[in-house]
Amino acid sequence: MLSRNRMLIRSLLSSSFPCTRNFSGTTPPPRKFLETGDTLRQTRIFTNEDVTEYSKASLDSNPLHFDSEFARNAGFEDRLVHGMLVAALFPRIIASHFPGAVYVSQSLHYKSPVYVGDAVVGEVQVTNIRKNKSRYIVKFLTKCFKNDKLLVIDGEAVAILPTLAEEKVNVVD
Amino acid sequence: MLSRNRMLIRSLLSSSFPCTRNFSGTTPPPRKFLETGDTLRQTRIFTNEDVTEYSKASLDSNPLHFDSEFARNAGFEDRLVHGMLVAALFPRIIASHFPGAVYVSQSLHYKSPVYVGDAVVGEVQVTNIRKNKSRYIVKFLTKCFKNDKLLVIDGEAVAILPTLAEEKVNVVD
Repeated sequence: MLSRNRMLIRSLLSSSFPCTRNFSGTTPPPRKFLETGDTLRQTRIFTNEDVTEYSKASLDSNPLHFDSEFARNAGFEDRLVHGMLVAALFPRIIASHFPGAVYVSQSLHYKSPVYVGDAVVGEVQVTNIRKNKSRYIVKFLTKCFKNDKLLVIDGEAVAILPTLAEEKVNVVD
Repeated sequence: MLSRNRMLIRSLLSSSFPCTRNFSGTTPPPRKFLETGDTLRQTRIFTNEDVTEYSKASLDSNPLHFDSEFARNAGFEDRLVHGMLVAALFPRIIASHFPGAVYVSQSLHYKSPVYVGDAVVGEVQVTNIRKNKSRYIVKFLTKCFKNDKLLVIDGEAVAILPTLAEEKVNVVD
């Protein structure tokens, strides 16, 4: 199985990658290039509709996400946002700056619950960049916070990026 | 931060847990109790609608999930199902058998791509059970396969279960 994974990564690394923007005929705007130590951040407030939509997509029917009384009896303040929906901030942040990014791995340690209405800040910080043929294997520390400094999720991710040139992102949730 | 996590887990472990079924007045049906070595499995075929719905919930706009030509130019056979959507099989399997399960951690190693229409088998195998007060801290090996034996995702999860008595689940996707 390991060799299959290596084959997949090798195949990805050796294939040509499509341009995500066509600047032909115009001068491309200056772009920031990703470096070790850089942090990318996005904030999201999770609504009732987000939880309902995610439940439909994931088919996850845990009553902790739907039943306030059940959640309170289980020791929480109210019903929870799905942990994997909160964690989805990480690939979203990476792919919005680097369209075509391919995820290799992600670890997730759930530290504090997220409730509907919480504003969660997701951040990915580059800890290592390794060039391989025409692509970049990038390692990130991945964290989510709420209420300013309360750690919600802690972990690491590895992704293959087609370029280190960042797309500018204007995120309005 | 670590102590906050320990406090959360301690608080969860010491709170009473709501019953998920009320059998009062009737004889409860015989139930299987989870043991080390047990494997729980569910299959899902990911459709276009699943990918669209998940994209709305996660706000992940990576063109690898929407643009077949982009995906093929990047070395894939076609556009990809989001890795985190595939990985959502794990908490779904656990929570469907153990409503009220609380996720502590999950690691994910993406080994092979999943395309729209692929039938993916998710399985979680118990490697350790530790009783703590009225709950159970359970460690699982978590794997997804497609085409019978092709490993798609490999990893581990830890969850807190309110009981080891399994809910019977009839899953029809």
